[in-house]
Amino acid sequence: MIPRPVSNRQATLLRKLNKKKYRTKEQLFLIEGARAVEQVLANSSVSVQHLFFDESQQYWNQQQWQEALAKVEGAVLDEELFAEVSDTDNPQGVLAMCRMPAEISQEKLVEGGGIIIALDAVQDPGNLGTIIRTASWFGARGIISGKGTVDLFHPKVVRATAGATCSIPYKNGPLSPALDELETQGWSIYLLDAGPGAIPLKEVSSLGKSVIVVGNEAHGVRPELITGDRQTVKIPSVGENRKVESLNAAIATSIALYALT
Amino acid sequence: MIPRPVSNRQATLLRKLNKKKYRTKEQLFLIEGARAVEQVLANSSVSVQHLFFDESQQYWNQQQWQEALAKVEGAVLDEELFAEVSDTDNPQGVLAMCRMPAEISQEKLVEGGGIIIALDAVQDPGNLGTIIRTASWFGARGIISGKGTVDLFHPKVVRATAGATCSIPYKNGPLSPALDELETQGWSIYLLDAGPGAIPLKEVSSLGKSVIVVGNEAHGVRPELITGDRQTVKIPSVGENRKVESLNAAIATSIALYALT
Repeated sequence: MIPRPVSNRQATLLRKLNKKKYRTKEQLFLIEGARAVEQVLANSSVSVQHLFFDESQQYWNQQQWQEALAKVEGAVLDEELFAEVSDTDNPQGVLAMCRMPAEISQEKLVEGGGIIIALDAVQDPGNLGTIIRTASWFGARGIISGKGTVDLFHPKVVRATAGATCSIPYKNGPLSPALDELETQGWSIYLLDAGPGAIPLKEVSSLGKSVIVVGNEAHGVRPELITGDRQTVKIPSVGENRKVESLNAAIATSIALYALT
Repeated sequence: MIPRPVSNRQATLLRKLNKKKYRTKEQLFLIEGARAVEQVLANSSVSVQHLFFDESQQYWNQQQWQEALAKVEGAVLDEELFAEVSDTDNPQGVLAMCRMPAEISQEKLVEGGGIIIALDAVQDPGNLGTIIRTASWFGARGIISGKGTVDLFHPKVVRATAGATCSIPYKNGPLSPALDELETQGWSIYLLDAGPGAIPLKEVSSLGKSVIVVGNEAHGVRPELITGDRQTVKIPSVGENRKVESLNAAIATSIALYALT
């Protein structure tokens, strides 16, 4: 089975999905590369709508893609259009267009407790994707993506999740009111911030309803969020001879997830 | 002070340093970008030999670079050559050429105990740089870089260390004999591998002389290294609804470093 050529309507849509505005409007996003597409096809949380193949690479001739095409409709793009739509320098010959899961409501998010990750302007797509991957591994309850955080469905974020995209409930929106509401509902807020007053992570005992707040890679957690009873938490360095200013944001978040689960 | 134009000899050398072979031969490596170069200038472990500026960006006019040029010799490259030498798509206007620290001998490495990271074909430069950064944060004793591991002084590795390059003793060479020798000297070998028989990381108690072995991103730790008394260690996932196959290699290593220090 050779997929039919891409339609003009589809080509226009594919070009648009490189922009966050259109991803949100259409509630669709793209995943690129054989390994990544295989992962989402095997991930029941992801609704794959359509597969797209690079004409010059002819992946559809391989048995695994024939099997995939028996379940999901496919189309072929010429090399130039595929490169335009791809966000990588060396496009791999297959793309999946997927439906974005709906955001979770704050009400649903707090049901049952667990660990919530709140992202305050996390800007590096690789960091965000890795945070999603690790949060999924440790069974986090959900992710709140605050203002200034890179789009959860940015192609580079999706790739860095290594197949974990869509596997954790999420909501977008300002962190300040979301954290206030969580606090009134008995959640403990832990801000990853090494400023004065921060306690070492090893001294934090998770009470079953914990929010880990992760700040921007360069500037840390916004001062407005560090208020009242909220506890700042640090991961202390070891030894005297330290040359590093801080841990990477995804590393710090992952260590906190490990320590609190 | 305006730095003089680059000499032909220097230009030839800069071009060569994109290749591992020449980095090793010359015992020199490059660091690119204002933030990264500032970090190594402030890092007493790094011997900065020379600064190079992009003529079109004129960083040398800024006060911080005038101050740097009072201590380290500088030269100017035209835009085309700078782009050729740079390993990034959008070159930032400054490069530092640095001297590679000498490898540590196995004898010196084992003095005093601590945690050693052994890398078995870790291939992603971002992962390796992040591992060096985290290992430096947690005061690791050293790094052994086994066959198939990306060069510790690859430009993308150096950038991902965020200034921690050269801050940890290292040696290159085959892992198998190095691990055998460490074992006979009373070190415990922990292989990050979730295969049958692996114990959860939380059950590992560090005895002060521990080696964490990190495997390749796709294939894990090589079977030849999993022998005898060596303990395989896993970081268990939480919950039933998991969609992820594994943790990222840098994340797993960092969690192990945190847990064992």
